[in-house]
Amino acid sequence: MSDPNNEKMPYSLNSRKVASATREWLHKRGVKVEEIAELVMLLQNKYYPDLTMQECLDNVEKVLAKREVQNAVLTGIQLDVLAEEGKLISPLQEMLVNDEGLYGVDEILAFSIVNVYGSIGFTNYGYIDKLKPGILERLNDKSTGETNTFLDDIVGAIAAAASSRIAHRKQAERERQNGEPEPELPED
Amino acid sequence: MSDPNNEKMPYSLNSRKVASATREWLHKRGVKVEEIAELVMLLQNKYYPDLTMQECLDNVEKVLAKREVQNAVLTGIQLDVLAEEGKLISPLQEMLVNDEGLYGVDEILAFSIVNVYGSIGFTNYGYIDKLKPGILERLNDKSTGETNTFLDDIVGAIAAAASSRIAHRKQAERERQNGEPEPELPED
Amino acid sequence: MSDPNNEKMPYSLNSRKVASATREWLHKRGVKVEEIAELVMLLQNKYYPDLTMQECLDNVEKVLAKREVQNAVLTGIQLDVLAEEGKLISPLQEMLVNDEGLYGVDEILAFSIVNVYGSIGFTNYGYIDKLKPGILERLNDKSTGETNTFLDDIVGAIAAAASSRIAHRKQAERERQNGEPEPELPED
Amino acid sequence: MSDPNNEKMPYSLNSRKVASATREWLHKRGVKVEEIAELVMLLQNKYYPDLTMQECLDNVEKVLAKREVQNAVLTGIQLDVLAEEGKLISPLQEMLVNDEGLYGVDEILAFSIVNVYGSIGFTNYGYIDKLKPGILERLNDKSTGETNTFLDDIVGAIAAAASSRIAHRKQAERERQNGEPEPELPED
Repeated sequence: MSDPNNEKMPYSLNSRKVASATREWLHKRGVKVEEIAELVMLLQNKYYPDLTMQECLDNVEKVLAKREVQNAVLTGIQLDVLAEEGKLISPLQEMLVNDEGLYGVDEILAFSIVNVYGSIGFTNYGYIDKLKPGILERLNDKSTGETNTFLDDIVGAIAAAASSRIAHRKQAERERQNGEPEPELPED
Repeated sequence: MSDPNNEKMPYSLNSRKVASATREWLHKRGVKVEEIAELVMLLQNKYYPDLTMQECLDNVEKVLAKREVQNAVLTGIQLDVLAEEGKLISPLQEMLVNDEGLYGVDEILAFSIVNVYGSIGFTNYGYIDKLKPGILERLNDKSTGETNTFLDDIVGAIAAAASSRIAHRKQAERERQNGEPEPELPED
Repeated sequence: MSDPNNEKMPYSLNSRKVASATREWLHKRGVKVEEIAELVMLLQNKYYPDLTMQECLDNVEKVLAKREVQNAVLTGIQLDVLAEEGKLISPLQEMLVNDEGLYGVDEILAFSIVNVYGSIGFTNYGYIDKLKPGILERLNDKSTGETNTFLDDIVGAIAAAASSRIAHRKQAERERQNGEPEPELPED
Repeated sequence: MSDPNNEKMPYSLNSRKVASATREWLHKRGVKVEEIAELVMLLQNKYYPDLTMQECLDNVEKVLAKREVQNAVLTGIQLDVLAEEGKLISPLQEMLVNDEGLYGVDEILAFSIVNVYGSIGFTNYGYIDKLKPGILERLNDKSTGETNTFLDDIVGAIAAAASSRIAHRKQAERERQNGEPEPELPED
């Protein structure tokens, strides 16, 4: 092209943009990090009675800072949005709009989020995804016209991942208090 | 060796032996297929009110006929038994005997079982593993001196896999009744 | 609505439509089942010198008949198509069009396909995805303007799954020839 | 017991012991971290020509500091050692000693290691596990009487995980050099 300002920039991944788009789209789809933190509290306060909402929030933030998580969130929300707009090919369109139980790709994306802090989060994810407490109940309300087929699983997975992170950190804390040498944290 | 009849046979996988050892070891460790079927009933009867115990049993049997499942069952029970006998290296020995929550390899093996019928079983596995109904409560009783660190997760995973199998089959049944051409079953 | 013919049918999953859309979209995106079968032959003929192209084809067909596989194929192709049309949100759009190496959701979907026949397919998938033989080279050609970020991984995964299926079946065949009682096939 | 000093200490996970047992057992089974680092170099130097052996080593060390990795390493080596000593139940014993291709639990453990740095490592794992370069060739030598059914997959998985870690870090480095604000590293 003749106009040099118009030239296509060579592609280069911008991690900051991926991170901020993740936050922005969660917000646009009506998900507050505080609500995810509430799920974490619900999952973890029986094991750690002193756990504070601030700790839950901090751990959700750390989970959301992971590239794997951001990619899964953006991809899942994208599919929800396009389904809501009726823009997917049939019969994918119908499966997503109706949250088809045998679809399963939503669980696969959710799982890639849980996995980031290892297998100990599997149980928490399944539990919360079945009971649908708090924000998960709202995301599952089929009467709104919204499509959150991916988002509800993703939000549950973020809460499960944050719970795993807390379990790892609390163990490290306990060992420090027992006078053990500072353990290297497994999530580093 | 001088006795030719005594010569070592070249190795060859005997699938029937793997299958029967799986059944035998579940029995030795106090797990009845009927108890796994009860977990399946508990997970599925709200979706299929007509579901019979015989169907649950049949589906558990089908799950147990899978090679992946048998390999995971045998490996998990082996580790439980050796831990119970105090024969593992430290600190693996201590982690297994105490069902360490941050160990996670038990969940990984369980997951390879659930996966055999796809991602739709993730949720059922997590749910049942958290609530520990029926046989799972007994397998988790730490006062018995037995070690079932792997087995309780494995039994829950078999029930979750059988539940997924039922969900796939019931869909095929429904479509046949709607006059749809016989769908190829996804689990073939 | 006043026109009863216009009334919305209640949603019901139609497995046959999902299966045929899968075949149709693979075709539209330029993938022939014969080309996937060639990948299978390449992966397996060193282990089974008598393996025929027809067997490879039959096994690819069986993999494509699985619901989990169809859902992953449709979802992946849908994302490729929308990326090609420039219809995704930024920066997902840029990541997909440029086949960003740190994206990873394409590998996750591919993995859900390989998993259908168990963990023994992991290695074949990784190997073929790295070497990019046959059709995979063409799907990776970035000069065409097409976006096959998901499709190339999906095609490799189908070939790896079909290879696993062959390995399971060949073992069953061998045991029958050895006079063992008919083993129950693990993939049933 | 009458001697109070002899009383059983209540169990408490000691992360430092798990970490040092991991290093010790890798050493006992003949695996040097330098050899794993060589696999990393082989996988990554075509993408990062300036990559040094020290960087490869450092990244292998970081992977080995993760709890999930340590648990998988210890469990896998334990099963190898017991198989070598002939102490497993039949037919698990025969499958492990003969590195049965349809066993698959070795791949499952390996996979839990790769997963720690996300799905982008899947391909590297499969590739290296198929080609068996360097130390992997030695671990696969069936003529030695040693059983490394789990260990070879585990070593390949550690190398693949370290490669993923490098890919994430190099991207962060590149973005810093482009004047982007310090991105939060996804692996924290």
